[in-house]
Amino acid sequence: MSETLSDPRSVLLHASDNVIVAVDSIPPGATVRGITAKARIHKGHKMATAPIAEGAPVLKFGQVIGFASKLIEPGDWVHEQNVAVHDFARDYKFAEGARQELILPVEQQATFQGFRRANGKFGTRNYVAIMTSVNCSATAARFIAKEVERSGILDQFPNVDGVIPLVHGTGCAMDTHGEGYEVLKRTQWGYAANPNMAAVLMVGLGCEAFQIGKWKEAYGIVESDAFRSMVIQDMGGTRKTIEAGVQAVLDMLPLANKSVRETVPASELMLALQCGGSDGYSGITANPALGSAVDLLVKHGGTAILSETPEIYGAEHLLTYRAADKAVGEKLVDLIHWWEDYAARNGGEMNNNPSPGNKAGGLTTILEKSLGAAAKGGTTTLRGVYHYAEPVSAKGFVFMDTPGYDPVAATGQVAGGANVLCFTTGRGSAYGCKPTPSIKLATNTDMFKRMSEDMDINCGDVLDGVSIEQKGQEIFDLILATASGQKTKSEDLGYGDAEFVPWQLGATM
Amino acid sequence: MSETLSDPRSVLLHASDNVIVAVDSIPPGATVRGITAKARIHKGHKMATAPIAEGAPVLKFGQVIGFASKLIEPGDWVHEQNVAVHDFARDYKFAEGARQELILPVEQQATFQGFRRANGKFGTRNYVAIMTSVNCSATAARFIAKEVERSGILDQFPNVDGVIPLVHGTGCAMDTHGEGYEVLKRTQWGYAANPNMAAVLMVGLGCEAFQIGKWKEAYGIVESDAFRSMVIQDMGGTRKTIEAGVQAVLDMLPLANKSVRETVPASELMLALQCGGSDGYSGITANPALGSAVDLLVKHGGTAILSETPEIYGAEHLLTYRAADKAVGEKLVDLIHWWEDYAARNGGEMNNNPSPGNKAGGLTTILEKSLGAAAKGGTTTLRGVYHYAEPVSAKGFVFMDTPGYDPVAATGQVAGGANVLCFTTGRGSAYGCKPTPSIKLATNTDMFKRMSEDMDINCGDVLDGVSIEQKGQEIFDLILATASGQKTKSEDLGYGDAEFVPWQLGATM
Ligand SMILES: [Ca+2]
Ligand SMILES: [Ca+2]
Ligand SMILES: [Ca+2]
Ligand SMILES: [Ca+2]
Ligand SMILES: [Ca+2]
Repeated sequence: MSETLSDPRSVLLHASDNVIVAVDSIPPGATVRGITAKARIHKGHKMATAPIAEGAPVLKFGQVIGFASKLIEPGDWVHEQNVAVHDFARDYKFAEGARQELILPVEQQATFQGFRRANGKFGTRNYVAIMTSVNCSATAARFIAKEVERSGILDQFPNVDGVIPLVHGTGCAMDTHGEGYEVLKRTQWGYAANPNMAAVLMVGLGCEAFQIGKWKEAYGIVESDAFRSMVIQDMGGTRKTIEAGVQAVLDMLPLANKSVRETVPASELMLALQCGGSDGYSGITANPALGSAVDLLVKHGGTAILSETPEIYGAEHLLTYRAADKAVGEKLVDLIHWWEDYAARNGGEMNNNPSPGNKAGGLTTILEKSLGAAAKGGTTTLRGVYHYAEPVSAKGFVFMDTPGYDPVAATGQVAGGANVLCFTTGRGSAYGCKPTPSIKLATNTDMFKRMSEDMDINCGDVLDGVSIEQKGQEIFDLILATASGQKTKSEDLGYGDAEFVPWQLGATM
Repeated sequence: MSETLSDPRSVLLHASDNVIVAVDSIPPGATVRGITAKARIHKGHKMATAPIAEGAPVLKFGQVIGFASKLIEPGDWVHEQNVAVHDFARDYKFAEGARQELILPVEQQATFQGFRRANGKFGTRNYVAIMTSVNCSATAARFIAKEVERSGILDQFPNVDGVIPLVHGTGCAMDTHGEGYEVLKRTQWGYAANPNMAAVLMVGLGCEAFQIGKWKEAYGIVESDAFRSMVIQDMGGTRKTIEAGVQAVLDMLPLANKSVRETVPASELMLALQCGGSDGYSGITANPALGSAVDLLVKHGGTAILSETPEIYGAEHLLTYRAADKAVGEKLVDLIHWWEDYAARNGGEMNNNPSPGNKAGGLTTILEKSLGAAAKGGTTTLRGVYHYAEPVSAKGFVFMDTPGYDPVAATGQVAGGANVLCFTTGRGSAYGCKPTPSIKLATNTDMFKRMSEDMDINCGDVLDGVSIEQKGQEIFDLILATASGQKTKSEDLGYGDAEFVPWQLGATM
């Protein structure tokens, strides 16, 4: 790329920031956004746009990434030589940054067309699921779905989005008093109760550790036109189970088909936030743009779930600082300690510090690195912290503990109740979910063009001058359209039958 | 059941045994197999059929389950009051029981009709597999297989058994220097190299931890008409990957179809041994009957793999005693120590001792309980011990470390090279495998009748007088027929697309 004094590109990540990020290398003397660079600002690095007094916060993503260790002047290169984190990166300043943000009254909230459920929640899709207690019934579940699909009968039920097998590899040879079992129990219940489900058939083998009867008891689930269960050993084998399973689905379809969309306020949206296959652009295009959409969603009364605990590790103070209260912050700190133990038990360790490569690329502090991922959660007060697959009840911005691994993380969020999902990706993800539609956000234009049939929105144009706020609005608008029934790219492709992957914890015996 | 002095049923589990097992309760004074009972022998309990001097071994399954703690006479009830295990259950008497069994010369070995592979191994099936490096490419892999199936083109390739997607939930967010990664690497290679595979297409995403390029390098895999790979990010997205994947399969089918069956000695069979959904009959019908078939297979030069380490835990001395040499025995002891650590790390513990319920049911010692499961391995010398998914190279009876969990255990054995599988079940299993045909053995007649469409052989008739040896011969004959192409019940039903479940070890990050 040839160097020019005119118009090196830059990104302002949040209106309140006192730094911008160089998209192209900024030579000394060049003028960017009205500020003259006092030194070379390499690609990905930060330039001050306002004076920052010694000890004053450096703001990026609208959040504190460190403090000036000496006076910083407009046009200065902002990096390790003039930024320190002090104790900020060690102390949990619980709830000091909590604010009461404006939530629009319901009559001013944006709306979508959703399906009303008996429990008062609203779906964005209308699926019948065939779930399994154990891998041993996975094939039977798949065959039931295949047979229903093959029969063509779904044409008679136009309001039903599909009959989907949600199978998994576990469910037996596990400690029924351990956390692995609890996680599976919650995940299964969360899927069965997700508002995008019209009805569920649960198929088991019979002798597995995950006993359907005990699970029903634990959650007060009763057999109805919206829930049926059967086990292969009682049915007399595979073929008879498939036959009875198909009949059970046929029995449930008429009720499922009665669901029709109605106008619902955006406060009924629960958005899962994901990223996978990140690149150097994730933190300056798609993630902050998604964060801007989340701030909008929160203003309209909705809920957004940030997750992927390993990626915020070491910078959790940013979240405890903006936690609604001390209890919310402490639940997050407990999770962090659990992860340290989990990694150690498995012979690893937690470490999210910026690497020499990260620093050369312009990331100054662990806070800044973490914010590159956490930016997709926006800037509002943290209203709740949830364990993996725990039902999310708070409105606003919340955190759910999950691994970073995409299908496992998203499975926890959907179990928590997410009815729509946004997924940022730099390298190009091939994720899609049923029952929750997934919007894919490309961090860069090259990948967006290369994988145009998989990507819903290009956030790469942020590098060319589209503002984060404009992009956030575009994402918010697509969330509403998707929630109302517009298909995402991954839905058009047919994704979602292989992406139910509950987190496996504990020994397989 | 009304009590009668005539003909209470019993089982002699091995010709060399000095006890029989009561199938019906034997009243004092009743004569069974020419021996008069001196006390009541409850159902499931043992009666001596020969004098056993104090200190002499009590033999069941042809193996030592303990020693007479006082003189035992024919007709005596044999249980805790007259049996002890002494140090036998604590000391590893390496290789003391090793023997050189008769192996028939190749011209006297039974034969089957198998597919010759380039590496000198022989298959019993002829599949084209679509494998995946990571869950992110699972949907693409399934769609490639579905599209090939839908096209009807397989009709032109009658020697090909099918095009099968073998997908899994892991492959990323894992420690690439940890044992979980090594296990996945080996498992994938083992499936790709299984002799039941004619050709393999490996599909990845691109940015995952499990890098196809590194994996190919590790095993010297080169692209050929029998192996192709592609990643979604390089292909330009899902649809283009499916299109290219279908084309790659079409390109591989003609060569795959050239494989024809030829006459092969039984020594080319590698039999995986499984049990799941055990019941009180497993240890006296199906498992010893399968053990008898294994002894036959070993005599004919073949290989049989016993697994499910948690189920032999505490009685591993029985296997070290019959190990071919000390190194083989020590490898098993190392595995046992690994499992103790694995369970402890995950907050559990290993314990396979007979419970009060087991004892009331007639199981006297941990050796006897373990033998109920291990009996399916027969009685010959242990020729090798393998890690999960490690390629099995020894002939004869071998052990592979796996969990007890059926799909995970069988996946390790098939990765080890198993080209046929026998699965005993009491409650009724719904397992089936691709690429390795799986013969299902019912332990009892009730379940066999109830699940007749899933079960291949009824071993319940052992309770009614069919001898273990007769049953073993019947199983051996079906193994040969199955290996030659006769379909099993689970193949008729279509099992095998959801049963590839690699053992997940280590943290999901
Ligand atoms: Ca990520
Ligand atoms: Ca992720
Ligand atoms: Ca990380
Ligand atoms: Ca078992
Ligand atoms: Ca098992």
